[in-house]
Amino acid sequence: MEDVVIRTLEKVELRRPVLVEGLPGVGNVGKLAADYLKEQLPAKPLATIFSKFFPPQVYVNEEGIVRLVSNDLGYWRSPKANGRDLLVLGGDYQGISPEGQYEITERLLEYCAALGVTEVFTLAGFAQGKIVETPRVLGAATSPARVEAMKKHGVVFSRNDPGGGLIGASGLFLGLGRLFQMEGVCLMGETSGYFVDPRSAEAVLKVLVRALDLDIDFTALEAKAQEIDRIAHKVQESEARGGEVPGSGPAPSRDDLGYIG
Amino acid sequence: MEDVVIRTLEKVELRRPVLVEGLPGVGNVGKLAADYLKEQLPAKPLATIFSKFFPPQVYVNEEGIVRLVSNDLGYWRSPKANGRDLLVLGGDYQGISPEGQYEITERLLEYCAALGVTEVFTLAGFAQGKIVETPRVLGAATSPARVEAMKKHGVVFSRNDPGGGLIGASGLFLGLGRLFQMEGVCLMGETSGYFVDPRSAEAVLKVLVRALDLDIDFTALEAKAQEIDRIAHKVQESEARGGEVPGSGPAPSRDDLGYIG
Amino acid sequence: MEDVVIRTLEKVELRRPVLVEGLPGVGNVGKLAADYLKEQLPAKPLATIFSKFFPPQVYVNEEGIVRLVSNDLGYWRSPKANGRDLLVLGGDYQGISPEGQYEITERLLEYCAALGVTEVFTLAGFAQGKIVETPRVLGAATSPARVEAMKKHGVVFSRNDPGGGLIGASGLFLGLGRLFQMEGVCLMGETSGYFVDPRSAEAVLKVLVRALDLDIDFTALEAKAQEIDRIAHKVQESEARGGEVPGSGPAPSRDDLGYIG
Amino acid sequence: MEDVVIRTLEKVELRRPVLVEGLPGVGNVGKLAADYLKEQLPAKPLATIFSKFFPPQVYVNEEGIVRLVSNDLGYWRSPKANGRDLLVLGGDYQGISPEGQYEITERLLEYCAALGVTEVFTLAGFAQGKIVETPRVLGAATSPARVEAMKKHGVVFSRNDPGGGLIGASGLFLGLGRLFQMEGVCLMGETSGYFVDPRSAEAVLKVLVRALDLDIDFTALEAKAQEIDRIAHKVQESEARGGEVPGSGPAPSRDDLGYIG
Repeated sequence: MEDVVIRTLEKVELRRPVLVEGLPGVGNVGKLAADYLKEQLPAKPLATIFSKFFPPQVYVNEEGIVRLVSNDLGYWRSPKANGRDLLVLGGDYQGISPEGQYEITERLLEYCAALGVTEVFTLAGFAQGKIVETPRVLGAATSPARVEAMKKHGVVFSRNDPGGGLIGASGLFLGLGRLFQMEGVCLMGETSGYFVDPRSAEAVLKVLVRALDLDIDFTALEAKAQEIDRIAHKVQESEARGGEVPGSGPAPSRDDLGYIG
Repeated sequence: MEDVVIRTLEKVELRRPVLVEGLPGVGNVGKLAADYLKEQLPAKPLATIFSKFFPPQVYVNEEGIVRLVSNDLGYWRSPKANGRDLLVLGGDYQGISPEGQYEITERLLEYCAALGVTEVFTLAGFAQGKIVETPRVLGAATSPARVEAMKKHGVVFSRNDPGGGLIGASGLFLGLGRLFQMEGVCLMGETSGYFVDPRSAEAVLKVLVRALDLDIDFTALEAKAQEIDRIAHKVQESEARGGEVPGSGPAPSRDDLGYIG
Repeated sequence: MEDVVIRTLEKVELRRPVLVEGLPGVGNVGKLAADYLKEQLPAKPLATIFSKFFPPQVYVNEEGIVRLVSNDLGYWRSPKANGRDLLVLGGDYQGISPEGQYEITERLLEYCAALGVTEVFTLAGFAQGKIVETPRVLGAATSPARVEAMKKHGVVFSRNDPGGGLIGASGLFLGLGRLFQMEGVCLMGETSGYFVDPRSAEAVLKVLVRALDLDIDFTALEAKAQEIDRIAHKVQESEARGGEVPGSGPAPSRDDLGYIG
Repeated sequence: MEDVVIRTLEKVELRRPVLVEGLPGVGNVGKLAADYLKEQLPAKPLATIFSKFFPPQVYVNEEGIVRLVSNDLGYWRSPKANGRDLLVLGGDYQGISPEGQYEITERLLEYCAALGVTEVFTLAGFAQGKIVETPRVLGAATSPARVEAMKKHGVVFSRNDPGGGLIGASGLFLGLGRLFQMEGVCLMGETSGYFVDPRSAEAVLKVLVRALDLDIDFTALEAKAQEIDRIAHKVQESEARGGEVPGSGPAPSRDDLGYIG
């Protein structure tokens, strides 16, 4: 078995495609954003990625059907005359070992390079360790020109954040991407780090939409964000009052905010 | 050395063979079921599997003879005119790393595909965290048709179980099996998860026997199940009474339920 | 770099050579025995083995000279007309991962098979968890004939020991050796498991010497064993008296028994 | 992807080059020394080394630009008629697994051998577990001649230090270097092991400068060392007085000594 198996589902020609990556991570911000983007564009399935660097696991859906854990690449054709097409990478896991991270990222970059990708946006969360009401979007990029361009879309480039650099797929797609002559930007939505954060995903996606001149409806994501906001506030209130929520049945617990999205 | 070494002991031609997998895991349910099936059919040795992804270990039998840890594949020829032959996979260990799980499963699937296997049954335990008097058999499958077929044999497909999916060989043989155009079913016997569970293995095997129209004598497995039931009840009683079993010598301890089978 | 590098120092032709393995492990029994055997025969250096499955480490000797950690193979020519030559394998470490254990053992077996080895003796300690005054030598073997032969030399084949089998090089050389058509015996000296045990190494080596009809002087090993006995007894006495050894200066501590040999 | 990728930035011919290695480790002594040496010579960039055995990480600089973690090799041409050129190896990480350490070191040695390297100096810290006012430089070497030569430069070869040998790149470059017919010396600066130690790096570098007859200005490194000395003493005083530093604002904390350099 190859270490990383990429099964192409459809053979496509794309116009100057841009790769958008959003895999599970802090607050699941990147994954939420990429999944929502795929759904709204909508993106069509292009390839499924299996790897022995993912956990040896299948998921079982509500009908009892199994599915091997994977990453998946979707594509979207811009309707504009000179538009750029998109590739969107999402999935169940990042590689579970350092070597696995490198191998998977490298194989995917090679695959995307063959499709003509020269530009990458990676989406991620940035843990602040406290509730963030209005998440900023922090950035990192492969060139000063891209830093400047992103600043115009409201992205914050901070001297100190992220201090220790970026660990995982969102950093690696940029770092290894340089070896494939790709340029790119990492967009990091501020998040508490305590639960899945559609509010932060929305902030990240709004920057991406401006940067790539896309047209996305945010209604469903906003609804999800408000639902999480509501639960989070109840938990905070409940904790402030010592755990009881008078006259309203049991208070929601932190479990309702769990990493399920 | 190859990562996975499959030593063929006999060259065989099989008729539309079905693979049955049962390796060590929760409650040793899958292994107990597969070992009992092999014994009762009986299955003949077909191949021995060694791998550097197993522990670097030999077992020593009562006569002092060593044997390298392995998996083993047996075969059985159906006596019926249009019957399907069986391959039964058992063994000492699953691969001890995620990569090892993938490598071993992939090599075995490739080997079985070459023998004509297009259908797989994987046998496993499902830990409920409490004593289960009458274990149900939960299922997961590769297609809606198989889900429906299994429901007719009493298999339960639950919306919530298994919530996090299946980890290990029983899931992987189905998930990776799809890449080899194999269809399959996982049968999971409910079990406490605290000790080896022949009762659960019996429940799983009874479903398998119905699904594959086999004729198996359950006397010995039932006896083993009753023995474990008896010990388990004594332990429960003893614990309820604070540890003493008046007038009957020392109470059996949890050790008597150990993972020895 | 190859995973396992075997540097041949001298090209030799050997007469029906027997491989004796003794690497670090429980009580360092196997290593003590193999090192002493090499010294007394004496064996000449045949090959040095380096591997990325050993720790990334060099030792520094008293003169300040570094040496990469390794295993090493020595050879000895029997002076007898029809005698069998010996290969003795010792070293600093066993492979530090399960895969490494398999890779190193397999490469060494392949190398030894090319030199004509068809028989292996592996030397090890067997931890009893308590001080053993007169260590027995337990055995495991690849065939009933070898079990019987070893019983004649006083080796004990116990139904229950070793219960869980043998883990590590001493088991693997026998288990994997079968794939190279080699037969073999593992000799395990009983030991406490708490400190290095030349007494147990002596017991093991005395069996080996009888089995291979060698002529070895045990004076130096016996002296080492008596020294350790003396310290061990003082520690025991000191502990029995609550730690003080009246009128005799500070009691020796368990540190004096440390894994230094 | 190759396990270790060496990107050559400039093709050079060097005169009998000596390799100097200084990677992160105890007290960051080796890295501080190698980085300072590169800066002062100054060395020019020769090659960048990426590897899947490094963490899957990018660093982000103050301008927001990402850089994949790496090692890097610089070169310096001696201005003297018969001088020897230098190669200096530094970087962000050592390999993070034992196998990775071996693979990276072996590939770099192979690369350097092709450039004509036959001699290696490795720079490291030696943890003493207590503050060392005037760090000695301990040594280890590949030959008695080199031990004698280093003693003349004030290097201490101690019977007992380093007792357990050297673990990591500084040992491995010497140990594996022998397989490439390279001779070498490891210079270890005594250090507490509690914080980064430019004082120890200075001691190591002064020996190297004498051994290689280089001309280096130590002003900046001495300033850095004095700054760390000053902070370390304040922390010690503060701790002695129970944490308060009267009349002088908050005392510096151990954090000011952190592994940042």
